[in-house]
Amino acid sequence: MNLRRILIGNPLRSEEAQHQAIGKVVALAVFASDALSSTAYATQEILIVLAAAAAISGTAVLGTSIPIAIAITILLAILTISYRQTIFSYPGGGGAYIVAHDNFGDRAAQIAGASLLVNYILTVSVSISSGVEQVASAFPALYPHRVTIAVIAIAGMTLINLRGVKESGSIFAVPTYFFIAVTMFTLLRGLFQWLTGTLNIVEDVEVLHYPASEQMQYGWFLILYAFSSGCSAITGVEAVSNGIPAFKEPRTKNAAATMIVMSSLLGTMFLGITFLANAVHAQPSEVETIISQVARAVHGSSVFYYLQLGGTAVILIMAANTAYADFPRVAALMAKDGFVPRQLAFKGSRLVFSWGIMALAIAAIILIIIFNAKTTLLIPLYAIGVFMGFTLSQFGMVRRWLRVSKFGADDEIVLAHTTMRFDPQWRIKAIINAVGGTLTFIVMCVFTYTKFTHGAWITAIVIPILVVLFIRIKKHYVDVARALSLSKRVVHPSKLPLHTVVFVDDVHMGTTHMVDFAMSLGSPWTAVHFEDNPEKSKIIQSKWQERMGEWDHPLIMHPAPFRKVSDTAAEYVRELQMEEPDTIIHVIMGQIIMHSWPSQALHANTSIGIKMALQNMKGVVVTDVPYQIRQEDVENAPPNEPSDYQVTTSVH
Amino acid sequence: MNLRRILIGNPLRSEEAQHQAIGKVVALAVFASDALSSTAYATQEILIVLAAAAAISGTAVLGTSIPIAIAITILLAILTISYRQTIFSYPGGGGAYIVAHDNFGDRAAQIAGASLLVNYILTVSVSISSGVEQVASAFPALYPHRVTIAVIAIAGMTLINLRGVKESGSIFAVPTYFFIAVTMFTLLRGLFQWLTGTLNIVEDVEVLHYPASEQMQYGWFLILYAFSSGCSAITGVEAVSNGIPAFKEPRTKNAAATMIVMSSLLGTMFLGITFLANAVHAQPSEVETIISQVARAVHGSSVFYYLQLGGTAVILIMAANTAYADFPRVAALMAKDGFVPRQLAFKGSRLVFSWGIMALAIAAIILIIIFNAKTTLLIPLYAIGVFMGFTLSQFGMVRRWLRVSKFGADDEIVLAHTTMRFDPQWRIKAIINAVGGTLTFIVMCVFTYTKFTHGAWITAIVIPILVVLFIRIKKHYVDVARALSLSKRVVHPSKLPLHTVVFVDDVHMGTTHMVDFAMSLGSPWTAVHFEDNPEKSKIIQSKWQERMGEWDHPLIMHPAPFRKVSDTAAEYVRELQMEEPDTIIHVIMGQIIMHSWPSQALHANTSIGIKMALQNMKGVVVTDVPYQIRQEDVENAPPNEPSDYQVTTSVH
Repeated sequence: MNLRRILIGNPLRSEEAQHQAIGKVVALAVFASDALSSTAYATQEILIVLAAAAAISGTAVLGTSIPIAIAITILLAILTISYRQTIFSYPGGGGAYIVAHDNFGDRAAQIAGASLLVNYILTVSVSISSGVEQVASAFPALYPHRVTIAVIAIAGMTLINLRGVKESGSIFAVPTYFFIAVTMFTLLRGLFQWLTGTLNIVEDVEVLHYPASEQMQYGWFLILYAFSSGCSAITGVEAVSNGIPAFKEPRTKNAAATMIVMSSLLGTMFLGITFLANAVHAQPSEVETIISQVARAVHGSSVFYYLQLGGTAVILIMAANTAYADFPRVAALMAKDGFVPRQLAFKGSRLVFSWGIMALAIAAIILIIIFNAKTTLLIPLYAIGVFMGFTLSQFGMVRRWLRVSKFGADDEIVLAHTTMRFDPQWRIKAIINAVGGTLTFIVMCVFTYTKFTHGAWITAIVIPILVVLFIRIKKHYVDVARALSLSKRVVHPSKLPLHTVVFVDDVHMGTTHMVDFAMSLGSPWTAVHFEDNPEKSKIIQSKWQERMGEWDHPLIMHPAPFRKVSDTAAEYVRELQMEEPDTIIHVIMGQIIMHSWPSQALHANTSIGIKMALQNMKGVVVTDVPYQIRQEDVENAPPNEPSDYQVTTSVH
Repeated sequence: MNLRRILIGNPLRSEEAQHQAIGKVVALAVFASDALSSTAYATQEILIVLAAAAAISGTAVLGTSIPIAIAITILLAILTISYRQTIFSYPGGGGAYIVAHDNFGDRAAQIAGASLLVNYILTVSVSISSGVEQVASAFPALYPHRVTIAVIAIAGMTLINLRGVKESGSIFAVPTYFFIAVTMFTLLRGLFQWLTGTLNIVEDVEVLHYPASEQMQYGWFLILYAFSSGCSAITGVEAVSNGIPAFKEPRTKNAAATMIVMSSLLGTMFLGITFLANAVHAQPSEVETIISQVARAVHGSSVFYYLQLGGTAVILIMAANTAYADFPRVAALMAKDGFVPRQLAFKGSRLVFSWGIMALAIAAIILIIIFNAKTTLLIPLYAIGVFMGFTLSQFGMVRRWLRVSKFGADDEIVLAHTTMRFDPQWRIKAIINAVGGTLTFIVMCVFTYTKFTHGAWITAIVIPILVVLFIRIKKHYVDVARALSLSKRVVHPSKLPLHTVVFVDDVHMGTTHMVDFAMSLGSPWTAVHFEDNPEKSKIIQSKWQERMGEWDHPLIMHPAPFRKVSDTAAEYVRELQMEEPDTIIHVIMGQIIMHSWPSQALHANTSIGIKMALQNMKGVVVTDVPYQIRQEDVENAPPNEPSDYQVTTSVH
């Protein structure tokens, strides 16, 4: 209990929720780190595709990366405007799940939800694995322990997030802002060198020999392929929209502003890195990243080069923190709608969705173990879900504008998460969303086609399975609600006949408490013992008679020829029910409670088994009379007095 | 439940125990397979040591293996006579644990017990790993899946043993007798060929280049080293003595006879293989075992060669079955004495010590995973425990003879497992045991010295840790027995004041059952709801008033500002106790019971948390009123009627 408080802090009152909201500065660090981290590899992804094409056609096409990067930045701008519209339309959190839910219904919402959840899990697995890979390349001795280090890192990040988004945001803001600062410095210094003609060119790079294939012929598909690969730059853009409830009031305004700043930074950095990569003649290599080549050309081997590399490693890890901020929120929204276990909607002692945080951590750890913490194996699983989410969200918004276009000026529809009103600008807004949705859909198709055999097929199987599962969970909750419903009836509680039975396992201090309780109820009762060990049972019978005073309560001995007391007890209760059909059978049992778990495990805990067997029987009620044995009870027991009770049994 | 019956069979009545006893034919298969399997490698162990010495000194010393094997066979004979004496002295099972217990007391007994338990676990790990290695060398594609195959093999063997020793014995008797038959045939044919001068010599063996060390100088230590290594032949000899209760009556006679037959077979086969190995000039090799070389020389490449190899692979796996027969018995003896968890003394539905069988399987699987199913890594852990057990058992018997030597003709001491009487032959019996004990002690020391850095150190650490743990467990049981003891007092059960509280989580069908029970008790009660979600609590309050008819029972609303209902409930009960110190607080709670585990997991199961919090409080008694929702309840619920109850909660 105290350990818990030290690790995750004192419990917070429900009223304190508002104080847990975060300002724009911290929010940028929390929600932008996933998006910004992609600048560490997006340019490289484009260049790899183009370099492979160059290897076949023999012509230098790396320069094409600049127009491609500009196109991607335009797509980023469209998505940003589009998500900004979503934020204002869905002030309670407007990710793909909500937008698809309100505009296309349950099925589409579950596809979006499954995509988002899978992505956030992958974000954690990939970013932690890549961070650990960076560390292991600096200290090769750690390489065989990658999985262990990754699991420890996830455990640490989980703990900090269980303390609350405000604390995790503050802790993790430092590395995020450090990365932004150092990258902007590199870009500005590089630009200055380029303008003054002093920018170096990298020459000693061991060029990557990319396995060229038929797909790689230079042509429209190649451009599309390079464009799609570069679109990894815009993953994470939706993070703010899922996290609106974490912001300080005015929430939507703050969220929208954060989103604009994030996209501007992202666009600037991505374009800047791509431009400089061309200017310094960077080429994709197996041993040196593009960002390292750019930094080396700009800074030489000065301290700034190492700061850029360190900042990049750190932002890759920080990307996981965005997933920690968003996964639990999306899961909680889905839990409120009944599509995932309801526990995911519970706020823990620190007002965060603790179950969601734990679920994310466990799923990410399982993925890391299965894929042995290898980033290259995990990345192909990624893209389908991201762009599936974008596409559903965009077309959901288009649907919204088409619906409100038919509204009169005073019409209003209140849905679960939004209020729909006519919007005079619906045409232009619908066009922006439609263009964004079409582009992201194309990117998704290209990704599915090019990465299918590399692992994307796994996602293509997992998402539909999750959707079916979510829909079955919802059906379960609806069915149970129906089965529990009183259907607005007025119920008249009634006094029913009771038959009270006390199960006597042995005769000791705990037994006297149990008998005291049975006496205190003031109704007749019978005591029964199940003879799983006839030898021992004889001792118990005689002890019952000797110890329990002169009274009229015999101990009924019931044979248990198969030794399993839980089955025998259930059989016994079933017989009682046959004799007295409309009676509640009230079973009273003792249980010895030890001061620690290991001690408890040393005892038979028969009462747990009996309770499990009885709880499935209608009309049976079980009372537990615990008898606590604490460390001090054990120490205070008269040491020299021989015990007339043996814990261990003779069975031979 | 049905699956369980199919897998392990119908439950057996306690009276049927005698029918589960096994005859000598099956018993030989069960208890001899461990000992006989060692003939597959013991000769080789001697030759490896001698070959290494030969590589240094340049002289041919492999012939020394025959006198060494004769010496080992003499030790085997001494041990057999000695264990035969033990069987008659300890008819309830006379392994090292019991003998050490009755003659040296608890500490020595725990050392012996820990050694035996560790050995049986190692026997399973080693024999299954080596069996899987043999299979993998025939089908190399299986090599990377060694651990998985080993785990599956253990699971299968566990299942068969859970059916009972009679069934497992019958199933596993076939391969054991097959090995005996084929090996005796090989030996007889080889002997005949040798007598007629037609025995071939193996020449094309790729000889092992053993890493020679200083220890390997030819001399007295080398002889001792080779002798100790060859003593792996006699591991498993104690198996019968631990398993006496499994035999048909007359138990001791049958057990003693089985032991003699086993030792005769073992001695004959071990001597025979060693003799033939010399006759065919077999040499230790990394690619071919000695037994394969012998079989190849005798049978050529005929079908008998392959039968011998197959039989050898199978007996190595069967050795694990001996451990399954003995580990649970030794553990049950220790559990009866209170040194290991008492559950290990429970007989399951098939009259076997199910917990012991499961514990053995789990421990062996953990070892296999840790050591990656590699036999060479596991074997050095082995020998210390085996010879520790032999030594304690032998010297325990010496102590026994010395004690009874002072008895008069009519004196008698009844101990836990034996009755001591004067024995006129005590001198010769004591000498036999003393010689056996001294030899096994020397072997243990040599093993510890030569194998310490190869892994024997692990056993040297684990056994003392286990001993300390066992003694602490015993102390716990003694302390608890003392704390629970009524100290022969007569108790007068008394009627105490009761305060009944009904915890209302929500208002639905289950709630009405809970209220019905509270009414039926016939005493006053109060209903309380903990407001973990104020919004929802308002709905519950109004539902309580609407649905529960016109009566005088208000629903008390108690704030739960930190949302965790279990903590709030405990706090509430503590306040009640402060107000009414000598009252039993009777808490009535509802619990929704689903038809399956996955369904149950979809619900909050708050009552479990509350019960865990309350069971640590003295004077508090909790009644569970379960409300079962079965598949048919869900299906029969009126589908078109809207539910007035929501399972999922709104938390935002």
